[in-house]
Amino acid sequence: MDKPSVVIREVMLRDGLQNITEFIPTEAKIELFQLLAAGGIEDAEITSFVNPKAVPQFADASQVAQAVLKIKPEGVRVSALIPNLKGALLALNSGMRNLAFVMSVSESHNISNVRRSTEESLDELKKILDLGTEYPDMAVRAGMATVFGCPFEGKIEPGVTLNFIRRFYRLGVRDMALSDTVGFGNPREVKELTGTCIREFPDVTFSIHLHNTRGLGLANSLAAYESGIRIHDGAVGGLGGCPFAPGAKGNTSTEDLVYMFEEMGISTGIDITALMEASRYFKKVKKDVSFSSSILEVGVPVPKGTITKDGFEQKWNIQS
Amino acid sequence: MDKPSVVIREVMLRDGLQNITEFIPTEAKIELFQLLAAGGIEDAEITSFVNPKAVPQFADASQVAQAVLKIKPEGVRVSALIPNLKGALLALNSGMRNLAFVMSVSESHNISNVRRSTEESLDELKKILDLGTEYPDMAVRAGMATVFGCPFEGKIEPGVTLNFIRRFYRLGVRDMALSDTVGFGNPREVKELTGTCIREFPDVTFSIHLHNTRGLGLANSLAAYESGIRIHDGAVGGLGGCPFAPGAKGNTSTEDLVYMFEEMGISTGIDITALMEASRYFKKVKKDVSFSSSILEVGVPVPKGTITKDGFEQKWNIQS
Repeated sequence: MDKPSVVIREVMLRDGLQNITEFIPTEAKIELFQLLAAGGIEDAEITSFVNPKAVPQFADASQVAQAVLKIKPEGVRVSALIPNLKGALLALNSGMRNLAFVMSVSESHNISNVRRSTEESLDELKKILDLGTEYPDMAVRAGMATVFGCPFEGKIEPGVTLNFIRRFYRLGVRDMALSDTVGFGNPREVKELTGTCIREFPDVTFSIHLHNTRGLGLANSLAAYESGIRIHDGAVGGLGGCPFAPGAKGNTSTEDLVYMFEEMGISTGIDITALMEASRYFKKVKKDVSFSSSILEVGVPVPKGTITKDGFEQKWNIQS
Repeated sequence: MDKPSVVIREVMLRDGLQNITEFIPTEAKIELFQLLAAGGIEDAEITSFVNPKAVPQFADASQVAQAVLKIKPEGVRVSALIPNLKGALLALNSGMRNLAFVMSVSESHNISNVRRSTEESLDELKKILDLGTEYPDMAVRAGMATVFGCPFEGKIEPGVTLNFIRRFYRLGVRDMALSDTVGFGNPREVKELTGTCIREFPDVTFSIHLHNTRGLGLANSLAAYESGIRIHDGAVGGLGGCPFAPGAKGNTSTEDLVYMFEEMGISTGIDITALMEASRYFKKVKKDVSFSSSILEVGVPVPKGTITKDGFEQKWNIQS
């Protein structure tokens, strides 16, 4: 199969679960990963090595990581969120090599989220990167939360984010994620910031992580794509949200992202129908979950040519 | 006040109502218009002169038109949908001068929707335009339904639409609306077709009418804006849908459109908070209505600086 034109990174097993209080059994998480991989997902965040007292959902991070690494198909890239050195060591001990470090560009959200000032987070990042001598196959992505706005501080100037990017760059990081944690971004801001990032740091791989709080998830992804961003985060069913960011809602639904890009002729390598199986499976595991995905709700239009209405052959049927 | 950079045409009183079976009292429709106008709406479709046997909701079209024309603020443009000559005459007799003629570019949807072939619809349009000698202040907008796809025929080639545009143009029409009746369009198609329309017919005013069936309403509006479309239809609460197009869902929510454009620095002239009053009023009139609007659901972020959480001043509060 050809390389997809855009990579949809599935964050259901990390962002999608972190806001769900009820513990999801480890086996269900692993089954969910298998369904996602079967749908063609080739990049996924699979768990979070955070303090289990803060987020009990991830008390099984090591088990999930070990199991997923055993079963993951060749070529599928899996990463785990880490907020600090301790998380990095736990992830590495579980066999993970792709670490998704996260900090907020907003001081107050960083303290609320990871209980550190941004300077302290940068110190942690340095210590994590130093582990590279011991683990030469380790790769670290630096994720920046609240890039387009913070629930405590409001809008964030692009200069604040660019300053962190410069500091990450000097530390040798070449893989960075821009996150709209609460869903404050708009297409103009997204296009401008991502465009500046790509122009100023052409050797950095930037990805975008959007929340659909105000309905702009797809429009913002489109804007980021137009700037040249080729890795877009999504969570099946539009699940997700930050437990330490009031007002945050779910990620852009992976189904909706795949639908948009594929309809535009931009290949994702993902089979949307198979992907929807993963959402439906999760609904069986957690019956009271509330999805936020247009495609899950209305279905993909598929040519059928079987149903007639008013004497016309209905070639397009709504698959529920 | 400065002229807005983009006009949001409010179609709640036409498209938003046509899918609601229960008759909404005439007084409530008029009150809704007043609330919309109070929110800064300066272009609105206010009713539909269709056969009341087919759509009983619009049995009061004449009364609504007459009342709205009496109370509408100076400068607010109001139009009414007409599918044929009979509708045009009824609209004109009620005092309306801006007529929104509609036909589908898909043969089968046109027959399902207005019970005519497209050739017969074009003949009707000619007869309607001939009324211009009797009503020199009459203005006719030609709307094309199912431009990006038909529930019966699937995708529609852009050439089909462009052919109708050419024929409308030859008849002297300079105001045209492109409608994604079922919500099959994607940003690439929208950008390409609207771009072609504007380039090939620079003296025509094109507007766009989108349904948010697959979550692409805002992304498609953004694409149309980037091509140069400056009139975008919306319905408060994301209501609407075509009773003769299976699978059609609501229009893009006006609240969400206003939020997106205003956040991008593109003025709409609309006060989103006042606009939300119109939706809330309609909810009182029809309690079981189901809205589809992110902004109505989560509220607009407004700087408040009153609530504290975890020791931080929360400058942004979620207005419900």
